Amino acid sequence: MNHEQRYLHYKALIDRRLKRFARQQEPRSLYEPLTYILRGGGKRIRPLVLLLSCEAVGGIVRDALPAGVAIEILHNFTLVHDDIMDNAASRRGRPTVHTKWDANVAILVGDELLGLAYRALLKTKSRNIQEIAKVFTEGVVEVCEGQAYDKEFETRRAIRVDEYLLMIEKKTAKMVAVAAEIGALIGNGTEASIRALRRYGEHIGRAFQIQDDLLDIVANERELGKAVGGDLVEGKKTFLLLEALQRARGKEKKMLHAMVRNEGIPRRLVPEYRRIYQQTGAIEAARRRTGHEIAQAKKELRRLPASDARAMLVWLTDMLLHRTF
Amino acid sequence: MNHEQRYLHYKALIDRRLKRFARQQEPRSLYEPLTYILRGGGKRIRPLVLLLSCEAVGGIVRDALPAGVAIEILHNFTLVHDDIMDNAASRRGRPTVHTKWDANVAILVGDELLGLAYRALLKTKSRNIQEIAKVFTEGVVEVCEGQAYDKEFETRRAIRVDEYLLMIEKKTAKMVAVAAEIGALIGNGTEASIRALRRYGEHIGRAFQIQDDLLDIVANERELGKAVGGDLVEGKKTFLLLEALQRARGKEKKMLHAMVRNEGIPRRLVPEYRRIYQQTGAIEAARRRTGHEIAQAKKELRRLPASDARAMLVWLTDMLLHRTF
Repeated sequence: MNHEQRYLHYKALIDRRLKRFARQQEPRSLYEPLTYILRGGGKRIRPLVLLLSCEAVGGIVRDALPAGVAIEILHNFTLVHDDIMDNAASRRGRPTVHTKWDANVAILVGDELLGLAYRALLKTKSRNIQEIAKVFTEGVVEVCEGQAYDKEFETRRAIRVDEYLLMIEKKTAKMVAVAAEIGALIGNGTEASIRALRRYGEHIGRAFQIQDDLLDIVANERELGKAVGGDLVEGKKTFLLLEALQRARGKEKKMLHAMVRNEGIPRRLVPEYRRIYQQTGAIEAARRRTGHEIAQAKKELRRLPASDARAMLVWLTDMLLHRTF
Repeated sequence: MNHEQRYLHYKALIDRRLKRFARQQEPRSLYEPLTYILRGGGKRIRPLVLLLSCEAVGGIVRDALPAGVAIEILHNFTLVHDDIMDNAASRRGRPTVHTKWDANVAILVGDELLGLAYRALLKTKSRNIQEIAKVFTEGVVEVCEGQAYDKEFETRRAIRVDEYLLMIEKKTAKMVAVAAEIGALIGNGTEASIRALRRYGEHIGRAFQIQDDLLDIVANERELGKAVGGDLVEGKKTFLLLEALQRARGKEKKMLHAMVRNEGIPRRLVPEYRRIYQQTGAIEAARRRTGHEIAQAKKELRRLPASDARAMLVWLTDMLLHRTF
């Protein structure tokens, strides 16, 4: 199996188990939307990181499958609740739960997902189970904190780049780090290898988020699967915007402030703002930052003994950087 | 210490620890409402059941304190989210989180409470920790199912009494049973004593909920702390209403159906509907049912060796039955 095939194999293992979790029927108002969510697809990156981290320290994939399912359900919990808070109408090309049903249903489905995530996690057989559950729980707490910062930033004018980095640290990177650390704990890795994999997760989590901000500006529409410049239209405070705000002077600075003040720009102005991001060096800064995070991630991987799983984690890292999805 | 004093002592132990959980400051949008909730009071019945169950099988209170805090935080999570779904403006005499802040804040605060509940639980030192976390998690899952049934029932005309009992089983009784079972697990009780305490919890949980329905009709306003007959005004499908619907004939049946159809009655009709509950025997049925549950609960307690903690659990049971709060 090459890396791509192995990825699809692991993804299928997770998808099959996720389906089992959506088997119950009653109460219908709860399990119908829950099934809708768990069968809604997704790249299953977090479980993949978890399974490979387990293997990379000498563990076997089967032992890590329940936790892999757990981290994906946890991720879906955040999506369902965030979509309510963000007023998002669609996700992965389908109506969100609170749009297709209502906000009350979506609140309850999210809560249930969190319960089911722990149910899956606690199927894990490991002498480290208490530590595993603790690491998972700190992920839950931090992802809530990250979302709180994200919502606070929406209504605050001035955000510093370091504040933005703290937010994505908690909202995105932490969960990937948790996946890697739990995989390493299940595989009974050494303290050094557990730490290396946790840091690996943090680095690729950050890279992933900044890359996301970048793709909104530099990808083409076909690759992105949605209109380019959506973050500009919505006035989202991305890494690019905050970098550009720090760097711009004169007319460009005024235009950026106008975008913040008006909470977005008309779509026809997207090319002009893209040019500002280009000229201020914000795009270059984002590229440099993701490049740096990716390099650091790979450096952490080199602390582990060479293995197929480690090679596959390197492949995954490059895929994330070059992805256009 | 008499029972009352001991109750207040245990309550103070829990309250002190709850305050510690609300110490963090940032992000403010999350921790300010969280502090508001955790310092908002409450009778702390669930932690009390947990601590006493631990003692009743020979364990010590200190070992059970983190789990006691956890079960109370879990309870508060359900309150915050249920209040959004139920559109409740106040609780314990203060504005609810979604009223004082907004629904988005309340969603996130609830999620964070669930994370913090696990954080507290996982501080427990016990050889049974995996089983304890599993029992706790089944509590989370069932409480969501119970709330889903509750919301379904609001929009359904005909609910059978057994469906109602399933709902309160999940929404109320399960959590008390979880508290008792976890206490017994922490105290390293025998299988028989763990089962007895779990069943004890189920019985008093059911008794508690039906008593709640009853008090809305038979208590006086000063005792209840709010207007009597609120469930009638809101057209809530209580044990009393469902029993009365099964028993009523002719004009009385028509009046009950009208209340369901109109989703409540004007406050001036409360005495008339109270009379229907009386004459159909619904009030008597509720009294009989709580009496039966209490008797069963005490029967389970008699399976345990005699101890101060067991005597205190008997006292608690009677207090719940005779409470007017």
